[in-house]
Amino acid sequence: MTPTTASPESRTSVGARRSEATEVAVLEAFAALLAEVGYAAITMEAVAKRARAGKATVYRWWPGKAHIALSLISQAKLELTAPQGASLREDLIDYMTRVVGLWRGDSGLPVGVLVRHCYAEAWSDPALAAALQAERRERWTMLNDILQAAMERGELPQETDLARAKDFAMSWPFYLLMTDRLPAPEEIARMVDDTLGGLRAGSSRRPSPDI
Amino acid sequence: MTPTTASPESRTSVGARRSEATEVAVLEAFAALLAEVGYAAITMEAVAKRARAGKATVYRWWPGKAHIALSLISQAKLELTAPQGASLREDLIDYMTRVVGLWRGDSGLPVGVLVRHCYAEAWSDPALAAALQAERRERWTMLNDILQAAMERGELPQETDLARAKDFAMSWPFYLLMTDRLPAPEEIARMVDDTLGGLRAGSSRRPSPDI
Repeated sequence: MTPTTASPESRTSVGARRSEATEVAVLEAFAALLAEVGYAAITMEAVAKRARAGKATVYRWWPGKAHIALSLISQAKLELTAPQGASLREDLIDYMTRVVGLWRGDSGLPVGVLVRHCYAEAWSDPALAAALQAERRERWTMLNDILQAAMERGELPQETDLARAKDFAMSWPFYLLMTDRLPAPEEIARMVDDTLGGLRAGSSRRPSPDI
Repeated sequence: MTPTTASPESRTSVGARRSEATEVAVLEAFAALLAEVGYAAITMEAVAKRARAGKATVYRWWPGKAHIALSLISQAKLELTAPQGASLREDLIDYMTRVVGLWRGDSGLPVGVLVRHCYAEAWSDPALAAALQAERRERWTMLNDILQAAMERGELPQETDLARAKDFAMSWPFYLLMTDRLPAPEEIARMVDDTLGGLRAGSSRRPSPDI
């Protein structure tokens, strides 16, 4: 997301096209309110007011506050940088450490709180559930690259099913997030070692060849 | 839970002691309403009325509907029978298949829906979060027995950390439940194989010996 110099006035008259300036203002307003009053007390009205945006405009692009939370999650993840590609183990430890740090709020925004709220609300909001699913696919581009590179270096079996391997690798940290037990840094290396044992020895292979 | 022949009248006058008859009536009423109107539309008032219990009595023992859902989850899990102890792989496949079937609603009650609602609401309800944590510990008695027996048969390293191993084994199915992708029966065996690869080759060991 590139910086913008649009004035608050131009933001409120944005009409049918989602403006980047409005998006920036709404996300900033949401993050500020999250820090000040907590997720439960945030209202769409308060977000619109603080962002100096029209309430109708905010509702047009985000049907509810969990949708704004999801936009914030996506934005925060842009800060994740790719590991160096040294080895699968080091890359996974690096990646997991960054993801867990992001969830814990090391960057100032408690992303894990937003993730948990999104999953909670996705239960009763099919549009949010679909957006979360798309977001998971997007997020995993980096993890996909890590696993793909490891396959090319011969660190994983050539027939590894990357989609399954990603699920497998992410499920433990996700479970710990959902049960309020985010792992300490020294625990992450042990989790990666257990996961690697499964990835290397297990059956995360394509179900059957295409031939 | 043993059957009871208490009349509805005796249930409503139960007072300070939680009566088994009231509990049965409330859980049955909740399950019936879940099937008829769905989780979101259930109210504590409707549960009390249908159970022919006093509203104050219901509130005394269950602060909210997610707490009744959790009681239902605990009750449903009593139906799980222990695997036969043939091998760790077979036991895990057996156990996971039963747990996933329970979540999916094979017994008539969609336990997975209840689990997801409980985790969603636990965010804003510390008492519920604590009850869920206690429930996780309880649930895992059977999984603990499976892993413990495998250690004794020499199928897992003697220094396996059972608490970590249980987290590891449950996180993938839990993740699939939370993302609405409960695995098909044939997928469960593959998941167990991946998990076993981690359990056998990984570092799910005690952090350090006591000596």
